[in-house]
Amino acid sequence: MAESEPHRALPKALAFDVFGTVVDWRTSVARESAGFLAMIGQDASAAEAFADTWRGQYIAAMIGMRKSGRAFVPLDELHREMLEAALRAMGVDAARLDPDLLADWNRAWHRLDPWPDAVEGLTRLKARFPIVTCSNGNVALIMNMARRAGLPWDAILGAEVSGAYKPDPKAYLHPAEVLGLAPHEVCLVAAHHGDLAGARAAGLLCAYVDRPDEYGGAPAPDAHHEQAWEWSATSFTDLADKLGC
Amino acid sequence: MAESEPHRALPKALAFDVFGTVVDWRTSVARESAGFLAMIGQDASAAEAFADTWRGQYIAAMIGMRKSGRAFVPLDELHREMLEAALRAMGVDAARLDPDLLADWNRAWHRLDPWPDAVEGLTRLKARFPIVTCSNGNVALIMNMARRAGLPWDAILGAEVSGAYKPDPKAYLHPAEVLGLAPHEVCLVAAHHGDLAGARAAGLLCAYVDRPDEYGGAPAPDAHHEQAWEWSATSFTDLADKLGC
Repeated sequence: MAESEPHRALPKALAFDVFGTVVDWRTSVARESAGFLAMIGQDASAAEAFADTWRGQYIAAMIGMRKSGRAFVPLDELHREMLEAALRAMGVDAARLDPDLLADWNRAWHRLDPWPDAVEGLTRLKARFPIVTCSNGNVALIMNMARRAGLPWDAILGAEVSGAYKPDPKAYLHPAEVLGLAPHEVCLVAAHHGDLAGARAAGLLCAYVDRPDEYGGAPAPDAHHEQAWEWSATSFTDLADKLGC
Repeated sequence: MAESEPHRALPKALAFDVFGTVVDWRTSVARESAGFLAMIGQDASAAEAFADTWRGQYIAAMIGMRKSGRAFVPLDELHREMLEAALRAMGVDAARLDPDLLADWNRAWHRLDPWPDAVEGLTRLKARFPIVTCSNGNVALIMNMARRAGLPWDAILGAEVSGAYKPDPKAYLHPAEVLGLAPHEVCLVAAHHGDLAGARAAGLLCAYVDRPDEYGGAPAPDAHHEQAWEWSATSFTDLADKLGC
């Protein structure tokens, strides 16, 4: 990370990736899954591995949506398909489980805890910049999460509003368009080099925020996409410092 | 208004009309227009009439969008067309004016002041219900207004997100759909009987909030749509009382 950032034009709005960047999906989904695994008579100590298996299908699902030409469905539906697959992988047939239990388990993604610096950092950033979401999460998911965690979004944008999942360029360009800004006036904030690479290819500015605990200490699957981003920070409060907030 | 409201199921989310219901468009647009009229050498004392002429084209424009099959355009564009028409009506050719001045004048709609009870009422309602916008205003307009006025929306929905202008049924049904709710679980909050009639026809619950000063004391153009709504209140704080917030 550079000791001092070079002078560059500030963005006019910040668009945030959410899973992993704003919230700690792994700890939260593991905590929730421990309870549900116990309820269905499975080993609750496998909850972290279960969370990894559930989330592990994510990138392939996003790419699959784009390649297959499947009509857009909200992420809640894809999460449900991935939940059933994760259960199958441990020999459990979801069709034999209580539908209400499954629906509530799937909504674990609506109940993710923020990283410790997220609310303070977003609040500082919001004082200077509009802060919007640019997540693959659907509106209800991101809104319920924000209400529970106190995330002060100015607007919930992203896949369900644009009709396109990242890394489709449309997913990055749509937030700029509805904010009435040029792509280079919007900065994507994300903990994932692959996501930022997609944003840069679409013409956005990029701010990387390091979240070394996202995968429980395991290496990030998209580390090979690393580039020199316009900003690089260790937390949202550090990003607020770097953007003069 | 009933002395005591009958018992009925509470909604699971509140969707708000914005212009006239949350913000006092007439006073704000007149104040802004007084400045711009003076700048172009026109009589600033005609600012209230100018605001009425500008807004007066609104309902016809919404219905025209639907009837003509014109592709969806953000309200900012329609406001600009109506601004130019209002100028023509006073003998001014917009093409001869400074484009930056016209663009800034058009953004007067991004700078509307809330009614005095709006922020307090929304804050109380938000503690119990998700509060989203269901306005014909585009995302940038509603977001800029909210940032300036401190309106604490959970999500900005409405015409630009649904692709349909009220009173198209799709404009009312889309917020329920993305929130994962049935139409009868969502309540439209509006100061306009015509808007509420559209919401009821689409299956939503309805809460009327009286804004007797919206038209500067002139009668509302849609008074003939009045019905017995599920709730009726004199302010957002009164509505919060009635919904147990």
